[in-house]
Amino acid sequence: MALKTPQEYLDDLRKMKIDLYMFGEKVENYADHPIIRPSINAMAMTYKLALDPEYEDIMTATSNLTGEKVNRFTHLHQSTEDLVKKVKMQRLLGQKTGCCFQRCVGMDAFNAVFNTTFEIDEAKGTKYHERFINYMKYVQEKDLAVDGCMTDARGDRSKGPGQQPDPDSYLHVVERREDGVVVRGCKLHQTGMINSHEILVMPNNTLKEDEKEWAICFAIPLDTPGMIYVYGRQSCDTRKLEGGDIDIGNKYFGGQEVMTIFNDVFVPWERVFMDGETEFSGMLVERFAGYHRQSYGGCKVGVGDTLIGAAKAIADYQGAGKASHVKDKIIEMCHLNETLYSCGIACSAEGRKTAAGNYLIDLLLANICKQNVTRFPYEIARLAQDLAGGYFVTMPSEQDFNHPEIGPLVKKYSASRAEVPVENRQRMLRLIENLTLGCAAVGYLTESMHGAGSPQAQRIMITRLVDLEHRKQLAETLCGIRENPDIDWK
Amino acid sequence: MALKTPQEYLDDLRKMKIDLYMFGEKVENYADHPIIRPSINAMAMTYKLALDPEYEDIMTATSNLTGEKVNRFTHLHQSTEDLVKKVKMQRLLGQKTGCCFQRCVGMDAFNAVFNTTFEIDEAKGTKYHERFINYMKYVQEKDLAVDGCMTDARGDRSKGPGQQPDPDSYLHVVERREDGVVVRGCKLHQTGMINSHEILVMPNNTLKEDEKEWAICFAIPLDTPGMIYVYGRQSCDTRKLEGGDIDIGNKYFGGQEVMTIFNDVFVPWERVFMDGETEFSGMLVERFAGYHRQSYGGCKVGVGDTLIGAAKAIADYQGAGKASHVKDKIIEMCHLNETLYSCGIACSAEGRKTAAGNYLIDLLLANICKQNVTRFPYEIARLAQDLAGGYFVTMPSEQDFNHPEIGPLVKKYSASRAEVPVENRQRMLRLIENLTLGCAAVGYLTESMHGAGSPQAQRIMITRLVDLEHRKQLAETLCGIRENPDIDWK
Amino acid sequence: MALKTPQEYLDDLRKMKIDLYMFGEKVENYADHPIIRPSINAMAMTYKLALDPEYEDIMTATSNLTGEKVNRFTHLHQSTEDLVKKVKMQRLLGQKTGCCFQRCVGMDAFNAVFNTTFEIDEAKGTKYHERFINYMKYVQEKDLAVDGCMTDARGDRSKGPGQQPDPDSYLHVVERREDGVVVRGCKLHQTGMINSHEILVMPNNTLKEDEKEWAICFAIPLDTPGMIYVYGRQSCDTRKLEGGDIDIGNKYFGGQEVMTIFNDVFVPWERVFMDGETEFSGMLVERFAGYHRQSYGGCKVGVGDTLIGAAKAIADYQGAGKASHVKDKIIEMCHLNETLYSCGIACSAEGRKTAAGNYLIDLLLANICKQNVTRFPYEIARLAQDLAGGYFVTMPSEQDFNHPEIGPLVKKYSASRAEVPVENRQRMLRLIENLTLGCAAVGYLTESMHGAGSPQAQRIMITRLVDLEHRKQLAETLCGIRENPDIDWK
Amino acid sequence: MALKTPQEYLDDLRKMKIDLYMFGEKVENYADHPIIRPSINAMAMTYKLALDPEYEDIMTATSNLTGEKVNRFTHLHQSTEDLVKKVKMQRLLGQKTGCCFQRCVGMDAFNAVFNTTFEIDEAKGTKYHERFINYMKYVQEKDLAVDGCMTDARGDRSKGPGQQPDPDSYLHVVERREDGVVVRGCKLHQTGMINSHEILVMPNNTLKEDEKEWAICFAIPLDTPGMIYVYGRQSCDTRKLEGGDIDIGNKYFGGQEVMTIFNDVFVPWERVFMDGETEFSGMLVERFAGYHRQSYGGCKVGVGDTLIGAAKAIADYQGAGKASHVKDKIIEMCHLNETLYSCGIACSAEGRKTAAGNYLIDLLLANICKQNVTRFPYEIARLAQDLAGGYFVTMPSEQDFNHPEIGPLVKKYSASRAEVPVENRQRMLRLIENLTLGCAAVGYLTESMHGAGSPQAQRIMITRLVDLEHRKQLAETLCGIRENPDIDWK
Repeated sequence: MALKTPQEYLDDLRKMKIDLYMFGEKVENYADHPIIRPSINAMAMTYKLALDPEYEDIMTATSNLTGEKVNRFTHLHQSTEDLVKKVKMQRLLGQKTGCCFQRCVGMDAFNAVFNTTFEIDEAKGTKYHERFINYMKYVQEKDLAVDGCMTDARGDRSKGPGQQPDPDSYLHVVERREDGVVVRGCKLHQTGMINSHEILVMPNNTLKEDEKEWAICFAIPLDTPGMIYVYGRQSCDTRKLEGGDIDIGNKYFGGQEVMTIFNDVFVPWERVFMDGETEFSGMLVERFAGYHRQSYGGCKVGVGDTLIGAAKAIADYQGAGKASHVKDKIIEMCHLNETLYSCGIACSAEGRKTAAGNYLIDLLLANICKQNVTRFPYEIARLAQDLAGGYFVTMPSEQDFNHPEIGPLVKKYSASRAEVPVENRQRMLRLIENLTLGCAAVGYLTESMHGAGSPQAQRIMITRLVDLEHRKQLAETLCGIRENPDIDWK
Repeated sequence: MALKTPQEYLDDLRKMKIDLYMFGEKVENYADHPIIRPSINAMAMTYKLALDPEYEDIMTATSNLTGEKVNRFTHLHQSTEDLVKKVKMQRLLGQKTGCCFQRCVGMDAFNAVFNTTFEIDEAKGTKYHERFINYMKYVQEKDLAVDGCMTDARGDRSKGPGQQPDPDSYLHVVERREDGVVVRGCKLHQTGMINSHEILVMPNNTLKEDEKEWAICFAIPLDTPGMIYVYGRQSCDTRKLEGGDIDIGNKYFGGQEVMTIFNDVFVPWERVFMDGETEFSGMLVERFAGYHRQSYGGCKVGVGDTLIGAAKAIADYQGAGKASHVKDKIIEMCHLNETLYSCGIACSAEGRKTAAGNYLIDLLLANICKQNVTRFPYEIARLAQDLAGGYFVTMPSEQDFNHPEIGPLVKKYSASRAEVPVENRQRMLRLIENLTLGCAAVGYLTESMHGAGSPQAQRIMITRLVDLEHRKQLAETLCGIRENPDIDWK
Repeated sequence: MALKTPQEYLDDLRKMKIDLYMFGEKVENYADHPIIRPSINAMAMTYKLALDPEYEDIMTATSNLTGEKVNRFTHLHQSTEDLVKKVKMQRLLGQKTGCCFQRCVGMDAFNAVFNTTFEIDEAKGTKYHERFINYMKYVQEKDLAVDGCMTDARGDRSKGPGQQPDPDSYLHVVERREDGVVVRGCKLHQTGMINSHEILVMPNNTLKEDEKEWAICFAIPLDTPGMIYVYGRQSCDTRKLEGGDIDIGNKYFGGQEVMTIFNDVFVPWERVFMDGETEFSGMLVERFAGYHRQSYGGCKVGVGDTLIGAAKAIADYQGAGKASHVKDKIIEMCHLNETLYSCGIACSAEGRKTAAGNYLIDLLLANICKQNVTRFPYEIARLAQDLAGGYFVTMPSEQDFNHPEIGPLVKKYSASRAEVPVENRQRMLRLIENLTLGCAAVGYLTESMHGAGSPQAQRIMITRLVDLEHRKQLAETLCGIRENPDIDWK
Repeated sequence: MALKTPQEYLDDLRKMKIDLYMFGEKVENYADHPIIRPSINAMAMTYKLALDPEYEDIMTATSNLTGEKVNRFTHLHQSTEDLVKKVKMQRLLGQKTGCCFQRCVGMDAFNAVFNTTFEIDEAKGTKYHERFINYMKYVQEKDLAVDGCMTDARGDRSKGPGQQPDPDSYLHVVERREDGVVVRGCKLHQTGMINSHEILVMPNNTLKEDEKEWAICFAIPLDTPGMIYVYGRQSCDTRKLEGGDIDIGNKYFGGQEVMTIFNDVFVPWERVFMDGETEFSGMLVERFAGYHRQSYGGCKVGVGDTLIGAAKAIADYQGAGKASHVKDKIIEMCHLNETLYSCGIACSAEGRKTAAGNYLIDLLLANICKQNVTRFPYEIARLAQDLAGGYFVTMPSEQDFNHPEIGPLVKKYSASRAEVPVENRQRMLRLIENLTLGCAAVGYLTESMHGAGSPQAQRIMITRLVDLEHRKQLAETLCGIRENPDIDWK
């Protein structure tokens, strides 16, 4: 069985040597760095739950490549049932971590690269698919965490890769050697980068014919020479350095965003899965984005569950849980959250088999799903702030609660219902702060907006995927502009 | 094969003698009455499309009772796939009719009564289920249209059936005879009543133990003695009497709402499927409502498709189709419409087998679906009115367009793009009026609000079906109030 | 004193001979036509209330031209207080009529033409302003109802007046004579046309230099030769012909929309207030639209008040008035309605004196006001439909309630709370139908969308009127891109 | 002239000795503490702009007490024009500081205490008003910053002051002495406390007759013995300690929230303005809340302006400024922001004179204003995050940009349009982070929700202030249930 334990996973990271910077300094032993560790813990949960018999059905699957049981995060979806279970797995992990757990990007990249390489090979006689199958076997056997990379630096947004003043604004091949290629560029907003073992890189967008050098897809280990990582800041990031366990809000888990620089990095041929096939870049991007837009119908719903739970808890603690407006707002939060879940389930249940054999979600409904994700979490967060009351942004620090002299006063005046320990209220308010303004808001709000493509990207896809002409004809038939061939009774 | 042609269906109705009133007069030959006929045409489409090979897969199914091919509207769902196909069938019919096509109520009642009677019999040793199977075989063999009836007159909404000043405010048994029961009462808002062959009556709500006489479920033919029908008014109903084919908006189809009075009506025992089992009234209501809330994720989406098509058409006709704000509003309409569809699909795909063997939707997600239906069609209609421009509420009548003298002037000043016939614009605007203010608005808007239960009914179900305590515990675990048993790595 | 009584006003109309068509027939004695009369009644209320001492302060004003007391609908606003009173007068009339009362268009045209002609004369040495003052004196002395006309037929919306295949798509001068001009064209969507005495015509949009023949502004009596009127249809219009007084919903009042054709109509010079000054067409349009967008912050609020009242009444009648969700929805309706009112008040209070001496509203805030009007009434109507329950779209006709045989049964099953007469419920439901789907919905919803300019028109104005560059500089100063000159302390 | 310079104000604070804690430590020289200083700078701007001739009209007023020119923040409003100018002053300061500038609370308290004490004295023959006038003269002469205090600790929200297990949950009198009273309790969420000179304390809510000891209103200097201050945490607060000037987002300004403990504090009689008059507690709370709800229609609009400016700037920097969806989203942000402003203006323009002579806003419209403030800033922030793109939550720290080795790479890959310095993009993104997730989000979002009362508080006021019965009668008149006395024409 190829399932790693969380401890093994963590030890893997401890062995890795990478070039990582944070706050202007080089970071050593990053696996134990207090700012980074919560994101490693979140990833570790994907290992932990796969070993838990309670969750076996949704956390693991039987590999179509090896017949072995694998972590579903490394699985190639073999049915719509698999697609649905993926969403359920993501909701579960969102519930268990209360944040972005970061292993989906790789899973979504696996599935998109798998069926796109198949179609490239079919059309062009290349061997990318076979290479990729070998790679996937390796990933499944080692139970690796792999980060999928798509978003380039992009420079001037009004210009494409080939027209940028700096050609490196989009990652591209700068040298071709007998044994492989050398690439240069930078992938931004990389969620779950330095808690992964490997990186799977894809092009950022549909490319024109003369942009072949940007049409590159490949995988490398994280510690490949030439890789430079710069850790991104998040709201309230340094609270993790303060030593307490209350003001951080989420005691264990968090996300991670890394600027990932490819400073002339060599990739051997067996790890190259696309090289110059610009006509397939759009397919790869669209499918990866589609899978990832589906993902948000699971993970953000799970985080939403924790935020709903936090809102319910704080209302109860403070003695407001039975007010009718409070109950109604909680219903509204649930309604919005389950609507997102419905979209995640629907695009999965309506999936279809690709030529390569793995399953693709319904692309239109996946875009609908993500479009709602750019809206509803913000409203859920607003309602959570409504129910929390204002103390989560005015409460004194953890240290003040513990101060020998004023601590007792601070506690006295922070008390709510007699039977609720003051510390519980304090902890719950900090969790709400974390989810709506702090570290986790980065994942729950801003990433919901921009991850897997900004709202306008989905709207463009929606126009392309909805058949307006057909709808127009329906209307024209009903009002008598067109013949109605169906009516034959008198 | 048990599939009726639309012509046979129509001829069935022509043979039926019923006690029907409209505008203070008794109606004879109702099947050819111009106000009623459009609703009969809509129902006829459920027969027509079932015979069309193109739609065979979604319009028909193999009966689990007889092994015969039956119209899906008479089918007992045998899988989640069946549930999904039901939604697709409804979307198709919404597209083809542009209105409520009225045959779903019966289908939803069939499935709810089927599995509820099974569970009553299991618990109480009664024989309702067997009776109901016999009834269903009859329905399937004859391919009957059956109207499900639930909503009582209800009198004072703050009081239950047993506390009403008038006990008839809720339909109930007034006499018990050896061969059956006599019932009295009234079912309001009966969509698709007098274009059906039969009526299947259910109780209106969860009943208390001393409300046994209201716990009655049965089926009777439409022309049973004692039945009185009063046709409900709809916005713009009398346009159908004007003789033209433009100002009616939808040239062929429409809905129907009928006050259905049971004026001491006898029901033989073999047609009684519940009689006094108050403790199962809640189950029956909840399941019927659940199925029907799912339905709205199909039918209203289909009508939405026609309205989106109409908005696109009119924008094109008037020369505004390429404006970026117009395109964006159409995307928004599609987004909302597909969100409803996603909810319809999700509650179906997440369905489960009942003890009786047929499939039930996921109740929570079906309520989520309906709750969205109480909102989004209104916004879609608002956007359609935005794109239409104001002429659909100020345009002269059809007769003015045809007037020998002023007709040419009216046409001259109603012209838009040179290549679009004036009449096309006129027809499309009337369709938009029909869908957003006229007859079809009754179904697309108000019925979306109240059909299958008003918004608050869903909110009550959502509270009951969401496990808030579990969500609270998730939050308490993350912020450190509860132990986190999952974390075992260091 | 120049105030007419409603009876005198009505008698004026009875004397007028005009060329009017409806349903393909010429209408004689239109003042007593049952479809038209409700709109005449609404206009009559503007006369009635001006004579009521209770409302004197807001319904009348002292003319700056004559020093006489005049109906505020003919007044040139002399202060921001006048602007605020205008809004209050409109709210009052919306409350009293429950519909569009149609006399605002003229008032808004008066004020816009007054200050635009002044600025034309200043710039070009013309005499339009003096002519217009004479005209206004006449209007005030006779207390005339005047309809302002702006919206042309417009043909292909992607082309301007000068590029239309049919030059008459926008009203224009077709002949210039010594004593005046001859005009041809058509004004669409004319609210309150044939219940007025006079027409004041303005160009439809900002014109280019070579579109001089479309830059025409003038006033004529309604019965001027060459004028042809075609009465527009409204949802449920023919209910007024049915003879009852319940199913019409609003027992007394309604709106009116008229296609107004200028079939080579002569206008004498003293009634011409702009002729070829294309460079002032934009100013006139923008100011008229501005005044009219302000208006909607009054009139629609008044109608909203009646709809809120109807929702409250029906909830009480049906026994649901105390449910917390019902109360909360009514609060939401009030909140939205008062937000509209706030916008109406704000653009008035922030008005400024024009060069001509009358007051202009704040144009930005007037556009904000109208933009909200394109949204909130739809949501208020949706909530009203929620609270009404579904019976207002399924209830039998008035005649069925009165039928000797089935009437008693219909009433029995339409009863709600014992102490509420069934007829009251019936009447209130019909009023809600009228306001959300019927005749009044035309004014409360669709006219709210398109009257005084469609939503996109306001958005274009908002961009033009908001200084984004200034806001950008504020941000650049705060984040340190620009110097902050204010900080001088240490 | 009584206007202080910002330097004098700052020097006042430097002289003050108070008992202040932060992060578990006592703070000395708080006026120069890097976490506190931005909030002092914001307050200093209220002094600075009052001295600027450009803003003299809106920043200053003539005192009705002394005839002297005073800072408008210490003024008692003498007209609706004053009320409108108040809102404009607040918008200006929001624009200039990009945060809560904290001096409004005192101004709103001044005006509420002024007219409430007058009415108490009228009713009870007390001398509070005279005392308060003396106090106000002192405040105006010294140009003091005074913090208004209302919100108590409140303990269990389901219980009132008199039923709390801990009577100190609401501030109350614990001892009555000849020369004054001793109070104990805690005011939470005190915005702008330790950058003020004085504190003006009011009761938290409508009190019952037996809750006299909580009916206390008084003023004391900040450095009164027994006062203990504990500085509240805010999202990203410690960024101010990092030494840079980019990652803080707003280079100069910020808010401040302080737990303010009255640990048996003595108040002399001449500073007591209410003592036991429970029947006036509701009036005081309602009026203070009303003034403060008006305030939010100014200050939050000003901050909204800076956020709109930031969104516009970042879109331009990144090359997306001309995309139609970007322009449309900016229009929407402006629309929402100006709607808030309209509400602020409307409740001011509709103000009325109180018995005491100063002006009170229209209470209903002030509550409408605030209710919108609990919604629109969240949507404006969501749209700003949409336009910003995701880099503001993934960007490396300021120190990484400056690192000798990797700095150049970080800058290379953070570049957008060639003509925009990378640092400008970096600064603007940090400002957006600050306003939507960081320190300023506390004021722009959460304070918009809860400051001046949580949303439900406004809804309760709206129900109380809207005359639903009148609206019901309007509807009943229109549909014929009531007589319509207005109609007298035939």
